Amino acid sequence: MAKELVFGHQNPDTDAIAAAIAASYYLNQKGMDTEAVALGKTNDETNFVLDYFSVEAPRVIEKADTKEVVLVDHNETAQSVSNIEDLTVTHVFDHHKIDFKTSSPLFYHAEALGSTSTILYGFFKKDGIEIPKKIAGLMLSGLISDTLLLKSPTTTNVDRDVIGKLASIAGVDDVNAYGLNLLKAGTNLSKKSEQDLIDGDAKTFKFAGKTFRIGQVNTVDIPSVLERKEALKKAIIAENEKQGFDGFLFVITDILNSNSKALYYGSEPDKIASAFNGKFVDDSIDLPGVVSRKKQIVPPLTDLFH
Amino acid sequence: MAKELVFGHQNPDTDAIAAAIAASYYLNQKGMDTEAVALGKTNDETNFVLDYFSVEAPRVIEKADTKEVVLVDHNETAQSVSNIEDLTVTHVFDHHKIDFKTSSPLFYHAEALGSTSTILYGFFKKDGIEIPKKIAGLMLSGLISDTLLLKSPTTTNVDRDVIGKLASIAGVDDVNAYGLNLLKAGTNLSKKSEQDLIDGDAKTFKFAGKTFRIGQVNTVDIPSVLERKEALKKAIIAENEKQGFDGFLFVITDILNSNSKALYYGSEPDKIASAFNGKFVDDSIDLPGVVSRKKQIVPPLTDLFH
Repeated sequence: MAKELVFGHQNPDTDAIAAAIAASYYLNQKGMDTEAVALGKTNDETNFVLDYFSVEAPRVIEKADTKEVVLVDHNETAQSVSNIEDLTVTHVFDHHKIDFKTSSPLFYHAEALGSTSTILYGFFKKDGIEIPKKIAGLMLSGLISDTLLLKSPTTTNVDRDVIGKLASIAGVDDVNAYGLNLLKAGTNLSKKSEQDLIDGDAKTFKFAGKTFRIGQVNTVDIPSVLERKEALKKAIIAENEKQGFDGFLFVITDILNSNSKALYYGSEPDKIASAFNGKFVDDSIDLPGVVSRKKQIVPPLTDLFH
Repeated sequence: MAKELVFGHQNPDTDAIAAAIAASYYLNQKGMDTEAVALGKTNDETNFVLDYFSVEAPRVIEKADTKEVVLVDHNETAQSVSNIEDLTVTHVFDHHKIDFKTSSPLFYHAEALGSTSTILYGFFKKDGIEIPKKIAGLMLSGLISDTLLLKSPTTTNVDRDVIGKLASIAGVDDVNAYGLNLLKAGTNLSKKSEQDLIDGDAKTFKFAGKTFRIGQVNTVDIPSVLERKEALKKAIIAENEKQGFDGFLFVITDILNSNSKALYYGSEPDKIASAFNGKFVDDSIDLPGVVSRKKQIVPPLTDLFH
């Protein structure tokens, strides 16, 4: 068994899976003994990517059975493996806000780039380690997924530079066509239950001692998701009660037009809405131009509760 | 005025000052507009270094008057500038344990290397930015100071490699002779008041909601410091009352023989002593082989209160 497990956040998205596989490969080339695993089943978008590049999904773990672990694409306890408090984190590669505490120094690298895959590209390059074609394909896909094909406001010039380099190593000639297929693969919501929709990409955040859940689905057709509002409401309220969430914000993002609508069920709706300079009407709020939870949803909520 | 201030921790040591100056220079070469400042007066050891390389001490600030700041050689709020909660941290370069929280993504690089100067050397190298001779001299000194001339258990192979490279750029031919002079410059404790001794390199730590102060002085003669025990005790107890510290551990380190003795005044002395598998006798405990607060004192205390 590998000495260290490498994993992304719970409810893994494509960047979490790609970064875990890429970071594990990178660290092994540097002499470590690691294995990439996942804190949950891969989603439809990631399955499209794994199929495309013929890579097996990492095995799913409930608890880490190694003493030492590497975190990618997250750092907060609430988003990590269940027994994280008993483990030693030796490395973090991440591009999110930080809420992190350790008792010893460690390797921690975060940058406000579009994806963790973009950050890892920099480490491969710095150390002159060649990226295998399949891993470059995964990293390309993590970058496309997290930046919505460079349309998200989280996109940086580094991402715009790295996407071409990864595409070239991965042998993807038409990045736009590949990227749209990838994003669309994650938008087939009709087959999914309401529970699947609200679980899909949801993350837990702590603001001023309260626990909020923020979910997000990508679609090309917001109205078709909103047709299921009553059933979503029921699922969200049940989830709040079951998990003890103070509130649940469910963001429905139109990836073609770069807009979102959000549903909210929980305490202090007016306060939550004020973070976005709006009001909930029938539990729903327009979020024009909003596509990034990390850059456009979490920071105003953090500031609101600060 | 520069748009961003760059600073190390309160009660700056040589690495905090060197890293601030080096990081500011590095970031300015990358196109930023920063100024290195200090959160306190430079100590005797650092003054020796600044004299040696003819560099002016950075100006001392009480509060940061820029919106954005860069932290070097620390990350914890309790060790940072007084108005840190109102500022946006854009970059962190550090080699300590992490207790850090932000509302937005940022650049954060930490590695368990011997000094922050060692880490910055890697960034200069990665980006092909030449290190000016004087700045290399400061970085060399930060590395020597933090690793006690490579004798501290925090020393890594990277430090052993980088020390020669910095010495060569800085034009220091005999690193050992220079390093011993540097370390000795910080051990002239006889002219210092007890208040100066306990303030000197002290840092505040939060363990399980309690506030502890851990000070450290380097010496070549522990008994001569212990002769002042009654006066030190008085100063420490007064400081605990004034600042509301739950306890104060004052570590006296023999830099030639790599041993320490510590005095402790505050609550739960038996619990504190148990972290080091010992007992306080006349408020004092032997810490054989202990020279590093970061690696040999803070982690057992953190684990104790976990």
